[in-house]
Amino acid sequence: MKIRDIGEQGLLERLQRFCPPEVVGDDAAVMTLQPGQELVVTTDLLVDGTHFSDRTTSPEDAGWRAAAANLSDLAAMGALPLGITVGLSVTGDTPVTWVERLYQGLTECLQQYNTAIVGGDICRSSVITVAITAFGQASPTQILRRSNAQVGDAIVVTGVHGASRAGLELLLHPEFGQRLRETDKASLIEAHQRPKPRLDVLPLLWEILDFPSHIQNLKSQISVAGMDSSDGLADAIVQICRCSQVGAYIERSAIPLSHALTQLVPAEQALNWALYGGEDFELVLCLPLEKAQALIKRLGKGAAVVGKITTGSNVLLGDSTGVYPDQKLTLSQSFQHF
Amino acid sequence: MKIRDIGEQGLLERLQRFCPPEVVGDDAAVMTLQPGQELVVTTDLLVDGTHFSDRTTSPEDAGWRAAAANLSDLAAMGALPLGITVGLSVTGDTPVTWVERLYQGLTECLQQYNTAIVGGDICRSSVITVAITAFGQASPTQILRRSNAQVGDAIVVTGVHGASRAGLELLLHPEFGQRLRETDKASLIEAHQRPKPRLDVLPLLWEILDFPSHIQNLKSQISVAGMDSSDGLADAIVQICRCSQVGAYIERSAIPLSHALTQLVPAEQALNWALYGGEDFELVLCLPLEKAQALIKRLGKGAAVVGKITTGSNVLLGDSTGVYPDQKLTLSQSFQHF
Repeated sequence: MKIRDIGEQGLLERLQRFCPPEVVGDDAAVMTLQPGQELVVTTDLLVDGTHFSDRTTSPEDAGWRAAAANLSDLAAMGALPLGITVGLSVTGDTPVTWVERLYQGLTECLQQYNTAIVGGDICRSSVITVAITAFGQASPTQILRRSNAQVGDAIVVTGVHGASRAGLELLLHPEFGQRLRETDKASLIEAHQRPKPRLDVLPLLWEILDFPSHIQNLKSQISVAGMDSSDGLADAIVQICRCSQVGAYIERSAIPLSHALTQLVPAEQALNWALYGGEDFELVLCLPLEKAQALIKRLGKGAAVVGKITTGSNVLLGDSTGVYPDQKLTLSQSFQHF
Repeated sequence: MKIRDIGEQGLLERLQRFCPPEVVGDDAAVMTLQPGQELVVTTDLLVDGTHFSDRTTSPEDAGWRAAAANLSDLAAMGALPLGITVGLSVTGDTPVTWVERLYQGLTECLQQYNTAIVGGDICRSSVITVAITAFGQASPTQILRRSNAQVGDAIVVTGVHGASRAGLELLLHPEFGQRLRETDKASLIEAHQRPKPRLDVLPLLWEILDFPSHIQNLKSQISVAGMDSSDGLADAIVQICRCSQVGAYIERSAIPLSHALTQLVPAEQALNWALYGGEDFELVLCLPLEKAQALIKRLGKGAAVVGKITTGSNVLLGDSTGVYPDQKLTLSQSFQHF
């Protein structure tokens, strides 16, 4: 059954089943913020062939990743999600089940974080496009801004990097993973297909900073810089430094890589994917060293202090063992559209 | 100069000039709601060739209409705008000026309502797609829900209908307007190219209902049903009736048509465009007759009581002069994608 067989109203009726009935069905959705919270909004556009393709991505996985990418942006602001809207353009030839499976993936991810699809729009196009906007709420004093990094701050990453890029490689070239154990292969592919937005980090961070969680009256004056590593770890660190007008020193050996990744490719390649692969959706946080250490202790596996914020504007990748010379990280190696 | 000449970063830098610098540049935008207000969110997807085309629409006008459509949905909920996000997919061949002119049109419309573009996303595609999400705030008790209509309510439209559809016809077939005066032609074309979201109606409505504007403590218990007529006047009335589980009687001669429209086409055609043409972006409101009359007096030209809410579920278009038989209005004549 194609979309043109059931028409716009038929498709709308099927998609509304994925939404809370009390929220949809009017000109707009209504949501309630808790008192004293600010509204945090982020938006992402995904295009068939660029951001997903039937070759590497089931519609469920495309949906999951679209939701995860937006929730990750909320996490990177220190915000808890309220809901998302979905703008979907599809061809008349698109199977109805493709769209339902996309929504299935979206809601599977959202349910992990007690949030929902609260509205949307559908229309016809020659290419499938998914436009997600996510809304969250955050206490004004807890917002993680890119511009909050201070000289001397430790730079924390909340988990391993490079795994998503390795998973993509395994999907595109399955023969490439022949040497790997099945569990390692599966873990890399899952990192690519089902990335987890690190909203779980926020309550731990607030606890460590002595913020009573969800409450506006703060006890701490520590401001934390944050960004997610969706465009690569190097990009996140460079962007934070640029916004905060500081530099950074990153210790090459401190960057956490998954065991499976190091089994798959040589160390240089693994590091390159960690820095520039993107889509790991971990958080990069800058905060005082003592708090940073407390946080990585709570976060456990994969979380690490990878460097520190410095004066100046250079972001250097260094090697304390002296084998590799310092290398300057820039945005230009990151992925750019067009 | 094409977009592929300046790349994603180059385009982002140019588009950020259209946004308030204090809001953009982080993983997400932060906005403040007034105390006691609820968040209202709506989203629209526009696709080149379906919703706009270079034949009838300049990029500025496409931008204006995209902003207007979303602000109109907020108005239809009784919400005042806080900001919009813009997801834009374009081809590498798209001229940079096309995109800048689109943003120019967006901001021209938004500035009329003291709101701004607070974020967005850009990516490459084979077809230009514009995904707008608008955020507003409303007092919980002032929200205009489609389900609020009560038997006996008067049905108000805030202005003339059919003009946008007539304007489109004039753009597609200029020879069609030979008989019209230039000012009439211009008014119909402007109705199509630069529709005005009726946010101006809200303070007048609150005043008439004895709501102190913007303040949560209400004096009135009157709940008003509302929807915009973006998909046609018939669609709006039928949707309100369906959501409120009521019927309606509409008086054929009471539907306000612009003078220019009646000059352009015979009465039957004019009425058809008023009911099914769409994109007039007026509000359709259901409220007690006395309040309705006070409102149309304040609104002035074009605003009218067009009928009343009845028991049952039929939406009838009647003629009190007895010339035409009653006609049942349905959704099926409205525009549907696919």
